[in-house]
Amino acid sequence: MSDTDAVLFANEAFYRAFADRDEKAMDDVWSFSEQIACLHPGWGPLFGREDVVSSWMAIIRNPDSPAIVCHDARAHVYGDTAYVICFEEIAGNYLVATNVFIREGRVWKMVHHQAGPTSAQPNTVRQEPAGFFN
Amino acid sequence: MSDTDAVLFANEAFYRAFADRDEKAMDDVWSFSEQIACLHPGWGPLFGREDVVSSWMAIIRNPDSPAIVCHDARAHVYGDTAYVICFEEIAGNYLVATNVFIREGRVWKMVHHQAGPTSAQPNTVRQEPAGFFN
Repeated sequence: MSDTDAVLFANEAFYRAFADRDEKAMDDVWSFSEQIACLHPGWGPLFGREDVVSSWMAIIRNPDSPAIVCHDARAHVYGDTAYVICFEEIAGNYLVATNVFIREGRVWKMVHHQAGPTSAQPNTVRQEPAGFFN
Repeated sequence: MSDTDAVLFANEAFYRAFADRDEKAMDDVWSFSEQIACLHPGWGPLFGREDVVSSWMAIIRNPDSPAIVCHDARAHVYGDTAYVICFEEIAGNYLVATNVFIREGRVWKMVHHQAGPTSAQPNTVRQEPAGFFN
């Protein structure tokens, strides 16, 4: 597996953990580096593993949290560090996200996430064809 | 100069170039890596040096673009890659930003920027002391 594929795999694991409400998988996604951070849309910055992972646990434990789908993930690898840019589809709206990963042994772990609003749409969203009645 | 200080210096150079409307300095900030990207608030992703730097030139050439001040910059260094989280003060409002840098020779160059809205405020914003008449 190329580094790019491995980073995209780690990125996918993050969105899969969110979608599946899988607390252990979400915990596994994040690095044990002391330098992790997270910028949830509209929030102030969170720093440190405890605050960052706790915020995600609160989100995935909340039954009212909407589903999430990742689109158009694109990985940029620089040696043992990488960042992914992707769209997040949440309740029919889109955000754009930056996810930063570092290589830890044989796997890539997330050290930072920022998501924010966008007026754009991903390329991979299927356009509904014009129907007979519309 | 420590790596952390050097990364914060590169981050400051980005905001200084913006504040000074300095096109050459803004061009110098960005890496010549083919993998650069930018997520302006509300925009779709921009990829590649030409599109990213052009977008910044359009912003700094526009006389209506507001002033910008960076607050609370915090650098996280991983070998030859680093990311900075900071607040951006723009026309009395605040954004939070992620700026990703890579080491190129003796300097750090920006490869990615994302900024988005936040409800938080930086710690370094000076609170006006209660005056005699208020």
